[in-house]
Amino acid sequence: MRASQFFISTLKEAPADAEIVSQKLMLRAGFIRKVAAGVYTWMPMGLRTLRKVETIVREEMDRAGAIELTMPVVQPAGLWQETGRWDKMGEELLRFKDRHERDFVIQPTSEEVITDIARNELKSYRALPKNFYQIQTKFRDERRPRFGVMRGREFVMKDAYSFDRDMEAAGKSYDNMYRAYCRIFDRLGLTYRAVAADTGAIGGDRSHEFQVIADTGEDAIVYCPQSDYAANIELAEALAPEGERPAPGATMQKVHTPRVKTIADLVGFLKMDIRQTVKAVVVEGDEAPVLMLVRGDHELNEVKAEKIAGIKKPLTFASPAAILAAFGANPGSLGPVGFKGRIIADRTVAKMADMVVGANEDDHHYTGVNFGRDCAEPEVADLRNVVEGDPSPCGKGALAIQRGIEVGHVFYLGTKYSVAMNATFLDEDGKPKPLEMGCYGIGVTRIVGAAIEQNHDTRGIIWPDAIAPFGVVICPVGYDRSEAVRATADTLYQGLAERGIDVILDDRGERPGAMFADWELIGVPHRVTIGERGLKEGKVEYQYRRDAEATDLPAEGVLAAVLERLGR
Amino acid sequence: MRASQFFISTLKEAPADAEIVSQKLMLRAGFIRKVAAGVYTWMPMGLRTLRKVETIVREEMDRAGAIELTMPVVQPAGLWQETGRWDKMGEELLRFKDRHERDFVIQPTSEEVITDIARNELKSYRALPKNFYQIQTKFRDERRPRFGVMRGREFVMKDAYSFDRDMEAAGKSYDNMYRAYCRIFDRLGLTYRAVAADTGAIGGDRSHEFQVIADTGEDAIVYCPQSDYAANIELAEALAPEGERPAPGATMQKVHTPRVKTIADLVGFLKMDIRQTVKAVVVEGDEAPVLMLVRGDHELNEVKAEKIAGIKKPLTFASPAAILAAFGANPGSLGPVGFKGRIIADRTVAKMADMVVGANEDDHHYTGVNFGRDCAEPEVADLRNVVEGDPSPCGKGALAIQRGIEVGHVFYLGTKYSVAMNATFLDEDGKPKPLEMGCYGIGVTRIVGAAIEQNHDTRGIIWPDAIAPFGVVICPVGYDRSEAVRATADTLYQGLAERGIDVILDDRGERPGAMFADWELIGVPHRVTIGERGLKEGKVEYQYRRDAEATDLPAEGVLAAVLERLGR
Repeated sequence: MRASQFFISTLKEAPADAEIVSQKLMLRAGFIRKVAAGVYTWMPMGLRTLRKVETIVREEMDRAGAIELTMPVVQPAGLWQETGRWDKMGEELLRFKDRHERDFVIQPTSEEVITDIARNELKSYRALPKNFYQIQTKFRDERRPRFGVMRGREFVMKDAYSFDRDMEAAGKSYDNMYRAYCRIFDRLGLTYRAVAADTGAIGGDRSHEFQVIADTGEDAIVYCPQSDYAANIELAEALAPEGERPAPGATMQKVHTPRVKTIADLVGFLKMDIRQTVKAVVVEGDEAPVLMLVRGDHELNEVKAEKIAGIKKPLTFASPAAILAAFGANPGSLGPVGFKGRIIADRTVAKMADMVVGANEDDHHYTGVNFGRDCAEPEVADLRNVVEGDPSPCGKGALAIQRGIEVGHVFYLGTKYSVAMNATFLDEDGKPKPLEMGCYGIGVTRIVGAAIEQNHDTRGIIWPDAIAPFGVVICPVGYDRSEAVRATADTLYQGLAERGIDVILDDRGERPGAMFADWELIGVPHRVTIGERGLKEGKVEYQYRRDAEATDLPAEGVLAAVLERLGR
Repeated sequence: MRASQFFISTLKEAPADAEIVSQKLMLRAGFIRKVAAGVYTWMPMGLRTLRKVETIVREEMDRAGAIELTMPVVQPAGLWQETGRWDKMGEELLRFKDRHERDFVIQPTSEEVITDIARNELKSYRALPKNFYQIQTKFRDERRPRFGVMRGREFVMKDAYSFDRDMEAAGKSYDNMYRAYCRIFDRLGLTYRAVAADTGAIGGDRSHEFQVIADTGEDAIVYCPQSDYAANIELAEALAPEGERPAPGATMQKVHTPRVKTIADLVGFLKMDIRQTVKAVVVEGDEAPVLMLVRGDHELNEVKAEKIAGIKKPLTFASPAAILAAFGANPGSLGPVGFKGRIIADRTVAKMADMVVGANEDDHHYTGVNFGRDCAEPEVADLRNVVEGDPSPCGKGALAIQRGIEVGHVFYLGTKYSVAMNATFLDEDGKPKPLEMGCYGIGVTRIVGAAIEQNHDTRGIIWPDAIAPFGVVICPVGYDRSEAVRATADTLYQGLAERGIDVILDDRGERPGAMFADWELIGVPHRVTIGERGLKEGKVEYQYRRDAEATDLPAEGVLAAVLERLGR
């Protein structure tokens, strides 16, 4: 491609409403243009990268034996009513009526349509296993779309759905997709981690998120550097501390703590170790408020809390009025002493002695509180988020935490959709059985943003070779005035193009500074600069986008030298 | 691809609501499945053909210098209000409100979004010419979606938009697209015709439809077998008959014509040549009803009629009440004699003598009517559709008519959108000027249906090689029981696959009859059947889908023989 035949549109400044680095760089580099909140045009430069991501995803899905089809963007409400998602999904599900007043949705995913296809097409065990996928436009009406393509409303997703005879076969389909996802993210050239995730109501242990590692990631990823253990923060188990609970060493004393509302206030007021304090959280139980206790420096894990039997689902924090009625005090002064209801302590709290807790009297706390002596022994559960340094559940080291951006998810669905939609097959024994399903998503547009969050510097994007809009840019200085420059540039361009390298020749006639700034912003990994002065010395300049310095290549045989840099 | 790894789903019968052959065959061959009225899933087999069409369109658009981008499916109403299409487009434009009650549309085309991009990005004459295109999902809320993908609601369209400095440059962009379209339809392997079409309010002569020729086509295409003249029926000019109007030969007589309401009634009642009769049509003028006259065997051309100055736009037929008030009679008995209003006669009528017309008195007609003697001389205009045998406007022969399916349209837009949206560029003289635009559509999904309408027989589809889901099918008889059959089939399969041929090996274990019926229905152009008996005689069987008979190929060297049939 010659730049004069293409469309390059870079901006000095990102629009003021751009919030994160990938969004700013995609706008500045002319990858996207905003059409409405969370809705973008993929400009020619961005579309090249998007298509490369799509192609890798498609090739690996095909290699894994998945079969591509395309379901419609617009789907009739009837199917969504069969599974109940029409009612359960909130305003994120975009609904509309057609001219005949029939209800439709714009697909956020396609479980319903594919299950409808499966119940009509997969009627015998001989048709199984099957895995269908599509790479298709989705819409999710986010309340607050932001971060460019990271949390847009219209986006491209690869969604795959597997159909199997039984759980064992479904497990094989799951593992097959897991491996395909690893190949996809390996080929994309991204640093990522597959982390165990919560399966919610489905149960089982078959749910993994694929997270692109980036300091700016929304998600906390927990892993063990000494093993392959990795889980998202919702799921990662916090083990109980080693050893027995220490014997009480202090007597319980009530302390007046005026204006102390938070753990930080308390620690400051009493000048004590935060690890002696206990945080009280009151949630609704099926019948009465339940008191949950985590250590002052720990955070309640709401996913874990919600899973406990007798706790209202979804997890609901008790109202101030309900708290006052149950405890006789307001939040900030709550604790287990004297509370007659259900008390659940985190595993760490259960091993504490001489705790500092709220006194269930406004502006008062107790110090020296011990379970069994000053209040009832609590139920014990894993209630908190792990923290860096916690022992790993794998038993092989201490947990570390890093940030990630979720770009893929593999999920065992079981028979949730097939039972709801009566999608059965005739098994070998002649009996109808519900199809065992799995679903597998990859955020294709999101990957582009995540790749930039992971790979950029102050000058712009640094694309992995596999998904750069162009692999090589040739920057001739004086293309229009120097015969030697033009000849060398044209020859190199033709040589690379003939070998199938995605090369762009910048023949726009920009000054070198502006030209280099554009290509560093756009993030093309390999740049060859050809100038008259260099040619006189038999040299051209090669710059790898990640390197600090440029290097010289011989002008004679530059094609071979560049191919070598490309690993070709 | 091995059939066992793919998804093949054929039906003996098409669903009862399928109306036309392409729809029936696409459903039976498992190319599409209906999700809602006019909304389909493209099944794996159909998607292969769709992608091949897309690829040819994309390659030729790229070759023509157009630059691909992707605009969103969901577009904000604001842009559509700027051009007035928000108000002008009827219920076909799918509108909805997002969760914040903001108005959006699902794109039927993207003139507004691309013009918005152009006004932000193409600010100088140096940025011109540019041609942007996308291949993207569209939605048109048809009142009565039918005919499968031929008149669906959700469909895939390639839409391109050119931007130029002036009309001359826009003409070059137009011609460039016209040539690209010819290459596209040539490569698709379809018989087609580019026909001149009406430009409506834009004016000028730059509008062509690309019509796939098929007996079942909705459109009438007019062409001259002796030249390259071709136009759609709306546009094709009906010349005036040669020579002068004959002198009156009869006196005017009133005839009682009870129960005569139509021309057919009249001809039957009076036992006369239909070419002596005149049909009267009353339309609304800007001020009063206007009488239009065409010969009894001719049809009023509404597009031509609407273009006449003083005629209400869009063309509106006068109401029965207005007709009664103006003529004193009801439709079926109307004519020019005694009518004081404006009369426009078709060129053919203007050359008639001794006409039979309605008497403006219910159940009465006049015979022997002559202009200038019995009624006023009318205005004369080209008001009718041409008919087979009419002299061609090119002067080189007689017109012929065939049926076509519109699959592409190139259209000069002028400054209609750029003026409405204030999309200007700074010209070389430093002055802002509105961008000259053209738009160029191809119905990608529609092409699949049109190709089938043109290419099928009683057994199924007959794909042109370029867009067949598979180019070659290998049908082994006894793949599971004969070592020789398996070895020959596998070797041929590998040989073809290695050469990049889209080959499918049918290893499903179906009986030969069922297997052949499937592939004839699906329409794969080349079939190689390998059986034990043939191999003993050193032969395999080759069948070209369009041929009546199979031929033998030598089992030794079968790969070379098949490649030769493929023209490779």
